[in-house]
Amino acid sequence: MCSPLQRALLVGGDHEAVVCGDVRLTYRELAGRCRRLAGALRALSLERGARVAVSGANCHRYLELYLAVPSAGYVLVPLNARHTDAELSYALEDAGASVLFSTRPPQKLPSCVEHVVGLDESFEVLLGSSSEGALDACDEHALAGLFYTGGTTGASKGVMLSHGNLVANAMNFMACWRFEPTTRWLVAAPMFHAAGTIGVLATVWAAGTHVILPTFAADWALDLIESERVTHTLFVPTMLAAVADEQTRHPRKVSSLRYISHGGAPIATETLRRGHAAFPDAELLHIYGATETAPIVTLSPHEDQLLDDARSRSCGQPAAGVELSIKRTDGSSAPVDEVGEVAIRGPNVMTGYWNKATETTRALVDGWYMSGDLGYLDSEGYLFLVDRAKDMIVTGGENVYSSEVEEALFAHEAVLEAAVFGIPSARWGEAVHAIVVPRQPVTERELVRHCRELIADYKVPKSIDIRTEPLPKSGAAKILKRDLREPFWRERETRVAGS
Amino acid sequence: MCSPLQRALLVGGDHEAVVCGDVRLTYRELAGRCRRLAGALRALSLERGARVAVSGANCHRYLELYLAVPSAGYVLVPLNARHTDAELSYALEDAGASVLFSTRPPQKLPSCVEHVVGLDESFEVLLGSSSEGALDACDEHALAGLFYTGGTTGASKGVMLSHGNLVANAMNFMACWRFEPTTRWLVAAPMFHAAGTIGVLATVWAAGTHVILPTFAADWALDLIESERVTHTLFVPTMLAAVADEQTRHPRKVSSLRYISHGGAPIATETLRRGHAAFPDAELLHIYGATETAPIVTLSPHEDQLLDDARSRSCGQPAAGVELSIKRTDGSSAPVDEVGEVAIRGPNVMTGYWNKATETTRALVDGWYMSGDLGYLDSEGYLFLVDRAKDMIVTGGENVYSSEVEEALFAHEAVLEAAVFGIPSARWGEAVHAIVVPRQPVTERELVRHCRELIADYKVPKSIDIRTEPLPKSGAAKILKRDLREPFWRERETRVAGS
Repeated sequence: MCSPLQRALLVGGDHEAVVCGDVRLTYRELAGRCRRLAGALRALSLERGARVAVSGANCHRYLELYLAVPSAGYVLVPLNARHTDAELSYALEDAGASVLFSTRPPQKLPSCVEHVVGLDESFEVLLGSSSEGALDACDEHALAGLFYTGGTTGASKGVMLSHGNLVANAMNFMACWRFEPTTRWLVAAPMFHAAGTIGVLATVWAAGTHVILPTFAADWALDLIESERVTHTLFVPTMLAAVADEQTRHPRKVSSLRYISHGGAPIATETLRRGHAAFPDAELLHIYGATETAPIVTLSPHEDQLLDDARSRSCGQPAAGVELSIKRTDGSSAPVDEVGEVAIRGPNVMTGYWNKATETTRALVDGWYMSGDLGYLDSEGYLFLVDRAKDMIVTGGENVYSSEVEEALFAHEAVLEAAVFGIPSARWGEAVHAIVVPRQPVTERELVRHCRELIADYKVPKSIDIRTEPLPKSGAAKILKRDLREPFWRERETRVAGS
Repeated sequence: MCSPLQRALLVGGDHEAVVCGDVRLTYRELAGRCRRLAGALRALSLERGARVAVSGANCHRYLELYLAVPSAGYVLVPLNARHTDAELSYALEDAGASVLFSTRPPQKLPSCVEHVVGLDESFEVLLGSSSEGALDACDEHALAGLFYTGGTTGASKGVMLSHGNLVANAMNFMACWRFEPTTRWLVAAPMFHAAGTIGVLATVWAAGTHVILPTFAADWALDLIESERVTHTLFVPTMLAAVADEQTRHPRKVSSLRYISHGGAPIATETLRRGHAAFPDAELLHIYGATETAPIVTLSPHEDQLLDDARSRSCGQPAAGVELSIKRTDGSSAPVDEVGEVAIRGPNVMTGYWNKATETTRALVDGWYMSGDLGYLDSEGYLFLVDRAKDMIVTGGENVYSSEVEEALFAHEAVLEAAVFGIPSARWGEAVHAIVVPRQPVTERELVRHCRELIADYKVPKSIDIRTEPLPKSGAAKILKRDLREPFWRERETRVAGS
């Protein structure tokens, strides 16, 4: 198969490939830089399949690494730029990375890392001294990247995605939305996360343009949408909420923006409404996925037309090339409307976790990726997620899905951010607890009363902690519920351990 | 991967799947019939991989065979319904078909054919007495069908297409145009030809609707477009010319028709202009392909915006998953603007010709399918075909592409149909000869004068035969230039043979 970059060169060598600050590159220039990057890596005498890590803010050099490293026969390892030194060192060592592209490498580098190159002028120096290398390593079964998950969940694992996985995902995206030479894709989410690179191959394939936002800020995003006439993007929910608020306060000319996708975390219907009100000309597309599925699993096109429908709470229908099944604990498929674990099969599913045979065996069962998400399908294949399997709260013998309680809280106009989880309770086993950051003054009593009108009594938070500072978030802007939950259980675990 | 039918059932079991005369089937009903068809074939004790042939006009039963036979583990063999008994018998024997679905089977059936079922009530009787069989044979490398080519070219060959080939083609189509649950695809071209089934898998995948035109007639097609609110279709050029003429004379309400693709034969810019004038709201899409490439090779979306551009004569840019190269006779790639043979590589390329090792070796060279078409690429990857390799005329030492001369003739308002080819000439080796069917009175002299204004002297036909009856066409409505050329060369060959 023709690689996306090869096709972009054929059909749009002179098209603008990337806009990043003052830098503007055509596909011919981008491909030239990618080939010199390949040549530079070859000159380091790396073995085929060597791991090349990158950590830093979004920039055109990140895009070049994303396109060049796998095609040159190496394995890309994008690392969470917000991770601590210890976390970065862990991932570098786990991956056995030979090269690290980073302007701020961890102080203590694992011994495997032989070369460190900054994502700044030193990157240009490297390219300047290189001859061109080949970009022809595109075997579909070959490993293209290790994508470290973690942030909201336990220990970091390297998700192994092949070229075929990434290509299948791009095809699934293109089968939903038209990508054309006139497409101008805003890279808004961080590129170490699947949400940041989800549109890259589709945009390259169409010889469209990437407009890169180095770090997310709502006003900056809107300024770029206006000045660069952005047509397509993906926001994670917290970003969509922020740009919608900003656009409502200080409207820009955003009529070029016809396609807004969102994903990476559950979204409240209220956030969708605000998004639609702020960008009335744009189609909203809900994308549900996981790093392990490269990432698209389900899609809800024309979601803006579903806002008054129960399906506004769905994350859509399986993408064209994705097989989805709701699995009971015995492995059988659950019928319509029955909650079970979301399982995914298809050419987009990872080959496994790097060096983690046990976790791989647990995650890939008979070719199905077991997502750990609980959900059900309706009669037209719309997937409704109810919770992460491990975020489900068992209180007084009842199952409570934290997401449902969060949705109820978000329906209150005062609620800006909310996180719901179980805390130890002598009476209930677990008690439903909420942490809320309000956008305007509100009391615990008001929120409890509000929730009682929407959800069953046993689901209503037993306690609500109202805070003024923003909730802690991962680099991909997901709320770190783990960190919020942890203090409540630490004491308990200490007690259990010491009992 | 989820099969298209499996996905349609999941997301649109109650959607209308097919409209054919008085018959309307939902996806649930269609899938039920496909499963009973699978059960019926199983009950015939066919071996896995057995060939199941079909010959007849377009109908919902043809669609059921197309979807069910490969998924049940057998190989579909669609046969040209206009072939003579001798041609049908040849293909049935070559394929070793065990079953033939046809209402008019050839009188002398090859011995391999054990079962004949009509595409009428006897089909219903077969289904009525069957239990449901599985439709789970979707291994991407397994043979899905033998598609017999021939009609415009020499001896008929069975093109072997795998499930993966057909799926890759559907993905390439979906990556160009949006297929949605609201898509209503008019099956206008005959279903034994790739042009007739090109939209099937994409439409099923989206749980859209097939509106089936049993046999082509311009007024019937337009009536269906109006009454069934057709949104997408493909016409071969002669069909597009006919519906455009009919719509101009007797306009229907055709605003639902937003996507018109055309393919299967070269098209004159004048035909495109008339098509655009008749259907101003529709996007025109040029599709170039071959049975051997399942079939899409290049696509020219928004072709209606190119009518005043030299690119209106192009057949577009390579589809997303298709690699295209212009090969010189030494096998190297020709640069931009240089004419060579069009070669195609990708997951859509056939695995070979059935039982024809020599022809397969000739056609598949280092993974490239050598199409036999001559063409060049411009600087943005637009493919311009100049001729079939064997239709090129060598006259007085000059190469003349018959398509260029035809294009010149079509630019004259009186020309309805035209075919240009070389005939034996003592002086020139070959002389350029044209056969023209006019739509209004015109003389040979007028046409020659007209051509002289457009093309070089040596390309202008030395002789023009003006006929009143339509030119002979294949079942897929391609002009049978072979039949037109043959009488001129027969005499010559007789002479050569007897000299």
